[in-house]
Amino acid sequence: MENKLGRTLPEDVMTKYGYKPFETTDLGNPTVERTSHKVRISTGQDKVTADLEKVVKENVKDGMTISFHHHFRNGDFTFNKVMKIIMDLGIKDLTIAPSSLTGAMNDVAIEAIKMGTITNITTSGMRGELGDFISHGALENPVVFRSHGGRARAIEDGEVKIDVAFLGVPNSDSCGNANGMIGESAFGSLGYALMDANYANKVVLLTDNLVDYPNTPASIKQTQVDYVVEVDQVGDPDKIGSGATRFTTDPKNLKIASLVSDVITNSSYFKEGFSFQTGSGGAALAVTRYLKNAMLSQNIHASFGLGGITKPMVDLMNEGLIGKLMDVQDFDKAAANSMKENINQQEIDASWYADAANKGAMVDQLDVSILSALEIDTNYNVNVLTGSDGIIRGAVGGHQDAATAKLTIICAPLVRGRIPSIVKSADTVITPGNSIDVLVTERGIAVNPNRKDILEQLENVPGINLYTIDELAEKAEQLVGKEEELQHTDKTVGLVEYRDGSIIDTIKEIKD
Amino acid sequence: MENKLGRTLPEDVMTKYGYKPFETTDLGNPTVERTSHKVRISTGQDKVTADLEKVVKENVKDGMTISFHHHFRNGDFTFNKVMKIIMDLGIKDLTIAPSSLTGAMNDVAIEAIKMGTITNITTSGMRGELGDFISHGALENPVVFRSHGGRARAIEDGEVKIDVAFLGVPNSDSCGNANGMIGESAFGSLGYALMDANYANKVVLLTDNLVDYPNTPASIKQTQVDYVVEVDQVGDPDKIGSGATRFTTDPKNLKIASLVSDVITNSSYFKEGFSFQTGSGGAALAVTRYLKNAMLSQNIHASFGLGGITKPMVDLMNEGLIGKLMDVQDFDKAAANSMKENINQQEIDASWYADAANKGAMVDQLDVSILSALEIDTNYNVNVLTGSDGIIRGAVGGHQDAATAKLTIICAPLVRGRIPSIVKSADTVITPGNSIDVLVTERGIAVNPNRKDILEQLENVPGINLYTIDELAEKAEQLVGKEEELQHTDKTVGLVEYRDGSIIDTIKEIKD
Repeated sequence: MENKLGRTLPEDVMTKYGYKPFETTDLGNPTVERTSHKVRISTGQDKVTADLEKVVKENVKDGMTISFHHHFRNGDFTFNKVMKIIMDLGIKDLTIAPSSLTGAMNDVAIEAIKMGTITNITTSGMRGELGDFISHGALENPVVFRSHGGRARAIEDGEVKIDVAFLGVPNSDSCGNANGMIGESAFGSLGYALMDANYANKVVLLTDNLVDYPNTPASIKQTQVDYVVEVDQVGDPDKIGSGATRFTTDPKNLKIASLVSDVITNSSYFKEGFSFQTGSGGAALAVTRYLKNAMLSQNIHASFGLGGITKPMVDLMNEGLIGKLMDVQDFDKAAANSMKENINQQEIDASWYADAANKGAMVDQLDVSILSALEIDTNYNVNVLTGSDGIIRGAVGGHQDAATAKLTIICAPLVRGRIPSIVKSADTVITPGNSIDVLVTERGIAVNPNRKDILEQLENVPGINLYTIDELAEKAEQLVGKEEELQHTDKTVGLVEYRDGSIIDTIKEIKD
Repeated sequence: MENKLGRTLPEDVMTKYGYKPFETTDLGNPTVERTSHKVRISTGQDKVTADLEKVVKENVKDGMTISFHHHFRNGDFTFNKVMKIIMDLGIKDLTIAPSSLTGAMNDVAIEAIKMGTITNITTSGMRGELGDFISHGALENPVVFRSHGGRARAIEDGEVKIDVAFLGVPNSDSCGNANGMIGESAFGSLGYALMDANYANKVVLLTDNLVDYPNTPASIKQTQVDYVVEVDQVGDPDKIGSGATRFTTDPKNLKIASLVSDVITNSSYFKEGFSFQTGSGGAALAVTRYLKNAMLSQNIHASFGLGGITKPMVDLMNEGLIGKLMDVQDFDKAAANSMKENINQQEIDASWYADAANKGAMVDQLDVSILSALEIDTNYNVNVLTGSDGIIRGAVGGHQDAATAKLTIICAPLVRGRIPSIVKSADTVITPGNSIDVLVTERGIAVNPNRKDILEQLENVPGINLYTIDELAEKAEQLVGKEEELQHTDKTVGLVEYRDGSIIDTIKEIKD
C-alpha cells in the first residue's frame, strides 16, 4: 500500500489499527463527533494525599492508557516517579501517551519496556537511548508518533482514551485548581497538559506547592481533578531550556537564521500585524533575534507570536514589537516566568494551538512559520524524526501543524558533518512537501516551485542566492558524497500520523 | 408517587420523561459519563457574517434545541433578535434552553409559544407575563426548571443537548475568541454561556464589537465557535442591575440584612479565610454592606466571595477584605466592568460554580450562603419559584446549589403585604429544608433543629431573637391570617429538578 506521497505502508499494520493512508493537507469541513469520558463525582474534600503509591494502586490497572506532559522537558521528575511505582506494583501492558518523551525519561522507559510494563507508546517523539532501543525493535507494537495538534485531535475524538493522567504542576490548591506559571517549579504554559486534564477519566496532579483555596488563575480546574498528590520536588525548571530548545551560538546556524530573517522581511507577509512561529532547533529559534532589527527599522509589529515561547519572543513583546504571545509551551525559564506578569502572554491548549479537527486553530491563522529539519527531500517532504542512521532521534512536535502557515520556511544546514540534509528521498516523511514553501541553508535558498509568488518576491534581493532544491541536493552530495541506503527489517517500529490521523509514513526496524 | 419531601409527583409525567423522584441532598461518589457533541471542522476563515438570517436558516431546524444566556438580564437583545427570525422562517417545535429567561424576553417568548415555534422550555426561571402564561397551561409539555448548577450538569451529561447556541458577546475576533468583560456592552463573566460554548453542536456569537485577532483573554475560544455575527447593538448593559439584582432601600430588607450579618459574625464560620455567597434579592444582596463593618472591626478577611458578583463585593475585594471573587455572573455594571482590571475577580463557568455531578464545585467549598425565599415552610423547605398566587414569578438560580454551604441563611420578611413568607407547606419546593440552617426575618430568627451547634452559637447574642419556625409561622398568621389554599388543575406545567436531576417538585396549572 502506498500513500499519496509514495510512502509504502504495511498493509497488515494499517488494517490491524484501522488506519487510512495520508491523502491531502486540505482537510475540508467534515463534521466529527467529540469523545466523552468518565467522571467520578466528588465534592472535592478528599483529594489531597502524599501517598502516590495508593493513588496508583487504586487507579492504574493492567492494560490501561496513562499519560504525562513534557512541559518540564529535561527537568521532568513525574514520569520516573510514577513509572517506578507502577513497575514495583507489577502492573503490566500499559499504553503510555505522554505529550512527548524527553531524555529525562529514557532510562525508566527502557526498563519499563523490558519488564513488560509498557507495551504501547504514543508520543510526539523520543531521543537518545530510548530512540535507539525502539528503532531496534524493542516493542512488539509500533510507536504511534503524533504532532502536538494531532495528539489534541486524537484525545478529542477518542482515538487516544486516557484512563489516568499524571500531571506535575508547580502549584495547586486542595481541590486541584492549578497553573504552570507560579511557584519554584514554574514552567509556564500547561498547554499540552490541558488536553489530558479535560479528557482523562482520572486526573492526578503532583505538586510541591499546595496553596490556599481558591487558587487562580486556574489553567487546570478543580472540576477536572481527582487527586492532588504532594511531592518533595515536582521538577527542575532550570532544565527546561536545554536539549532541542537551547540557544545556538554556532556560526552556521546564525548565518541560516539571518538568511531566514531576510526571506521573511522580503516577502509580502512581512507587514504590520503579521504573525509568526519559530519551532525548536537552534537556527529556527535564533531567527527571532534577527527579525527584531527589521521590525524596528521598518516599524512593523507582529500581531502574535505562536508556539514554544522563548525569551527573545518575550523581549519583543515587552518592547511592543509583538502584540500577543500565544503560548502552548515555554522553551526556557525566562519565558515560563514571564507568563504570570504579562496578560498578553496567553496560555493556549494544544487544541487551540494546532488541532486540525476543530473549528480553527492558531496555526491556521499563521503568516510565517520557521521550522527545522533533519532531512528535506527534493519534493520538500521533511523528516524531523529519524536520523541519517535510521534511528529515532527527534519529535514531530508542532512541525506538521505550523507548516500550514502562509509562508513556511525550513532552515537546515546543507550538511551536518558528513551527512547531507537535502536528499532524494527522506528516510521518514513527517511533513508533506506541499506544506513547505522555502528552504534556507547557509549555502543557498530554494523556493518550492508551487510558490511562484514567493520566488518573485525573493528574486534580485541582495544576499539571497536562489537555487532549485535539486541544485542544493547536488551541492550537498558534492560535499559529502552519496548517502548510503539504510538497511531495515520488515518490522514496523513506528507509525507516523499526519495531523488528521492518516498515516504519512512508517518507521522500520533498523538492521545494524 | 411521592418523593422524600412528601411532594406528590405525577406518575405519567415522571414515566414519560424518565425522571426519578428526589431522594437526598447527599449525592455520593458515583461515576458518570460525560456527553459528547458534534464539531464541524473549519480553519476559521469563514466565520464572520452580518447575515443572521442566513445563519439561522442553515442551522436551525424544526424540533431542535437552541440556547441563549441571560448575562445581559433585562438588557438582552439576542433572544428577541434570533427568535423573531426563527418565527419569520416558520420554524416549529423548538426546545429553548436558555440559562434563564428575563423580562426582556417575555413578549417574544409568548408570541413564539402561541405560534408553535417554542413547544418546550427548560430554564432557571421566568417572571411577569410569561410566568403567568405558562402557569395557566400555555404549553402542552411542562417547563423544566433547573438550578444554574443543574443546567451545567444536564448539559454535561447530555440530558440537555443543544443543537445551536446563540450567544451575545461584547467583543469577538473573526475566529470567535471572545470575552464578556471588554467593550461598550460588557457584562462581565460569561459563566453560564461557557457551558453552551463548550457543548453545543453549533455556536453562534453575536457581537457589536469585532476586534483584532487574536482576542484575549478568550473566555470563549475560537475552537468552539462556528459563526461570528455582527449586529448593531448586542445588548444594553445599563439594564443588568435591574430586576432581581437591584439594591434595596427598603427598611425591612435592611433590617433583615443587618440581622443576617449578626448571625454570620456570631457563628463559628466567621473567621479568617471564610467564604460567602449572596444570592439575588434585596435583603440578601444588602448583607455584604453590613458584613464589611464586622470584617473591619474584627480584622477578618474572606478567602473568596462567590456567585452573582455585585459592586459591594468588588469594593470589599479592592479594600483587601475579600481575597478573590469567583464570578459566574455579574449583577451590576460596576461588577461587570471591574473584571477586566482585577486579576482576582476570576471568571468561573457554571460547572465550576455549582455542578453537583463533577469533581467538586465552588459551592461545595462555601462557608456561608445568604439566600432569599418567596416562601419557607415549617420544615425549612424553600420556594423561590411560585408566588402565593401559584404563578411562576422567580428562578431556581443558584439557590439549591449554594444551599450546600456550611451555613445557609434564608432571609425573608415575615410577611409581604397580606402574604405570609412562612407557611405550613410551600406551594413549590425548590430547595430541601435539610440544606437550610437559619431563617432570618425582621421579626425574629429561627434555626433548623438539626443545627444545634448554630443554635448554641446564637443563643444569648444581643439583638438576635430566636424562635422556632413554627412560632414565626404563627406570628405571620397572626398578622395576615391563614393563607387560602390554591386551586390547581391536574395539568403539570412545570417540573422542578433538584441539582442532581431528580424531581423535587412539580407545578400545576393554576385554576383562576
